[in-house]
Amino acid sequence: VLLTVAYDGAPFAGYARQPHARTVAGELDGAVRAVDPKASLVRGVSRTDAGVHALAQRVAFDSVLDIPSRGWALALMRHLPHEIAIRRAALITPGFEPRRHSVEKTYVYRLYQSDLRDPFLAGRAWRVPQRLNHSAMAEAAKVLIGEHDFAAFRAAGDEREETVRKIFRIEVRTDSRDPRLLEIAVEGDRFMYRMVRIIVGALVDIGRGRLSAGALSRALETRQRRDLGVTAPPEGLYLERVLLDDEGTDPWPGPESFAPRSN
Amino acid sequence: VLLTVAYDGAPFAGYARQPHARTVAGELDGAVRAVDPKASLVRGVSRTDAGVHALAQRVAFDSVLDIPSRGWALALMRHLPHEIAIRRAALITPGFEPRRHSVEKTYVYRLYQSDLRDPFLAGRAWRVPQRLNHSAMAEAAKVLIGEHDFAAFRAAGDEREETVRKIFRIEVRTDSRDPRLLEIAVEGDRFMYRMVRIIVGALVDIGRGRLSAGALSRALETRQRRDLGVTAPPEGLYLERVLLDDEGTDPWPGPESFAPRSN
Repeated sequence: VLLTVAYDGAPFAGYARQPHARTVAGELDGAVRAVDPKASLVRGVSRTDAGVHALAQRVAFDSVLDIPSRGWALALMRHLPHEIAIRRAALITPGFEPRRHSVEKTYVYRLYQSDLRDPFLAGRAWRVPQRLNHSAMAEAAKVLIGEHDFAAFRAAGDEREETVRKIFRIEVRTDSRDPRLLEIAVEGDRFMYRMVRIIVGALVDIGRGRLSAGALSRALETRQRRDLGVTAPPEGLYLERVLLDDEGTDPWPGPESFAPRSN
Repeated sequence: VLLTVAYDGAPFAGYARQPHARTVAGELDGAVRAVDPKASLVRGVSRTDAGVHALAQRVAFDSVLDIPSRGWALALMRHLPHEIAIRRAALITPGFEPRRHSVEKTYVYRLYQSDLRDPFLAGRAWRVPQRLNHSAMAEAAKVLIGEHDFAAFRAAGDEREETVRKIFRIEVRTDSRDPRLLEIAVEGDRFMYRMVRIIVGALVDIGRGRLSAGALSRALETRQRRDLGVTAPPEGLYLERVLLDDEGTDPWPGPESFAPRSN
């Protein structure tokens, strides 16, 4: 079974299961086992950090029970807390490993510029007290588009050797209804641990004048994490979309259920 | 000191203080007393129910400390949980009772039409699984505009004699970015306990065909609560604005701080 899952990451110690902490995978495992005690553990695409949210995480598990996709979705929802929702379910090939089929991911980072905190954005967006120069951020982001060695854009201590990644799109956009809000969308093939939050942190430091406009291209050359700015905090980050090269069959509820309703 | 306060009502047992429950007034009292142990208790305009939110509740208290309005706001915020924020502070006449000076209130009710729950709207909007007829709701709401006897629109058991109220505006509006969302704004002089939630419940029952279009005018005539529909749940209700006939002086941070920032 392949699920599309949305969650508010605030109450969880991240996606990945841990022995003594409340995690998204742990909650999903519990719900799956409540329906089928012999089912496999769940296998997710992205190990989102503590506090990070998802609009469409992709998660697979195996069960021999003969339940249609819609039945799985409804049954699992009955065993999940209100912070986690199944948005779609599909029956697919047994043993399907969504992580290996992921070809593109989109993250959205939300922040708001205000010297006053907002109770309705607590845990859901990064509050930046400075006024940001949006056009400088959008302009600076352009150098990251394409295939580059992103060695500077990974967490300190990450010693992997393969650090070339491809970024398809970075968009810096404001919200017409709430001018405090700023969203940064980043789309790429694969991301290293904390890579999106380091990109966002550097862009915000450019936007408030703490980093020069040329800092990103310099970091791509030097490959040094220290040439960039802060790491943006987890609460503003949303895994928005995962594109798989094999989507399985029999989706429930199917795309049309999410289409606008009109009267 | 007169405060404008925003809060997420989800974790509280309502605005009004209670001996063994976490309330908004209780948290505000605690913060005020942490700054000035001799200050008065806080006096709010609206006793919002458990789970009901506020964007701009108005609250006053008395202190003899010589602290400027901005200093009060910053000091109180240090002692408040992230669900409560001070949006503005002003120094006013001692003993000011904001409840007596309230001349107009605006409530906004948020709901979303979906058969799937949304983790980011949990506790912040009412989920209605049916498709609603928005134009029937907007049309039906018109009969409530003006001065009427709203005896049918109060909680069962409420036996007050004076039930005439004035409604200035009811607006049923959709969200262009999220077509699931529907907002109902209600503006009036004074509201009885649960009156807004009963209005919204009746409009939703009209929108899903459970109540006839004429139900509201019939209820105004019969004065019978039973001629209306369900009471909408608290989680969708927001106290959006309170207009006072005397706003005091020396506001902090002043209206311009909430104006759009541009680059």
